[in-house]
Amino acid sequence: MLATRNAGKIAELSRILADVGGGVEIVGLESFPDAPDVPETGLTFADNALLKARAIADCTGLPAVADDSGLAADALHGMPGVLSARWAGKHGDDVANLELLLGQLADVSERGAAFVCVAALVLPGGSGEWSATGVLAGTLTRAKRGSNGFGYDPIFVPEGLPVTTAELAPAEKDAISHRGRAFRAIAPLIAARA
Amino acid sequence: MLATRNAGKIAELSRILADVGGGVEIVGLESFPDAPDVPETGLTFADNALLKARAIADCTGLPAVADDSGLAADALHGMPGVLSARWAGKHGDDVANLELLLGQLADVSERGAAFVCVAALVLPGGSGEWSATGVLAGTLTRAKRGSNGFGYDPIFVPEGLPVTTAELAPAEKDAISHRGRAFRAIAPLIAARA
Repeated sequence: MLATRNAGKIAELSRILADVGGGVEIVGLESFPDAPDVPETGLTFADNALLKARAIADCTGLPAVADDSGLAADALHGMPGVLSARWAGKHGDDVANLELLLGQLADVSERGAAFVCVAALVLPGGSGEWSATGVLAGTLTRAKRGSNGFGYDPIFVPEGLPVTTAELAPAEKDAISHRGRAFRAIAPLIAARA
Repeated sequence: MLATRNAGKIAELSRILADVGGGVEIVGLESFPDAPDVPETGLTFADNALLKARAIADCTGLPAVADDSGLAADALHGMPGVLSARWAGKHGDDVANLELLLGQLADVSERGAAFVCVAALVLPGGSGEWSATGVLAGTLTRAKRGSNGFGYDPIFVPEGLPVTTAELAPAEKDAISHRGRAFRAIAPLIAARA
């Protein structure tokens, strides 16, 4: 059970679990039309991932996996963080969020940042909770480059690469992404417990 | 020498210094039309206050006092912080900054915050640097209240008070303000060294 309606995430976690072995089948939230939309009220990625996974495990009676992720800028003490998708004040306006961040950091020379993802696994009935963190470290550009990906991809250059994550092909990004790293880190637990 | 063109700040520091004694005369930046406009590129209030005081001490050959201040929200790990005046991406748009912060924290129950000011004293010729911090702790409201003050005053309720700092009379705010606290903390150093 993966707490998402995002087909890309379901496919990615299914591929990663197939590599780990264990024969677990991942089903997405779209199979449970009554599943609650869980507000992301936590102050950390782990808080939010666990909130979502707990709510879905409670509702479905199945082991639930959820993730929360975002961009942590060093000059902003780790923010936008859990507010990455609503940084400009409204949920999901990628362009406004990115333009706001560029404006805030216009005079700031500290460009260090990281994409961070926490994946959480919650078993139903309070019988177990785990979380795992994946990090992709890098720096922030001063202007957008590339048109792949979403969110802050056009201004994020991963450590050791000459391009932004929006200039990588989807498969190249998947191979190094914070989400992939978090999913791979929690996959053995899913295979063993779910 | 106070690194500001703000007459209110000059009068406030002069009053505080008169209380401490020492007979130091405070002159503002408007007496030095060639003084540089120092970009606030630091990552901390102390960085910026020292940057400004150093630049003015270098330029005028006088002991220089400068301050930097802002709002530190617990849920944002201390941000807007040094970016308080340009949080919405453009310098000095108080309404946009405040509305953005309210939007970012709309789903967030952690409302703790503090107004923080760091005052710095720099002697010319590299003969000494000091800084002092003043803090006013409180909480953030979910809607604006009051029309005094500026910046985030309409959404900041000081600890122990039933009103926002925008609902306080100017003299009441001065008596508890982060800037007053920082100026009082550095005043004995100014009286002794300047």
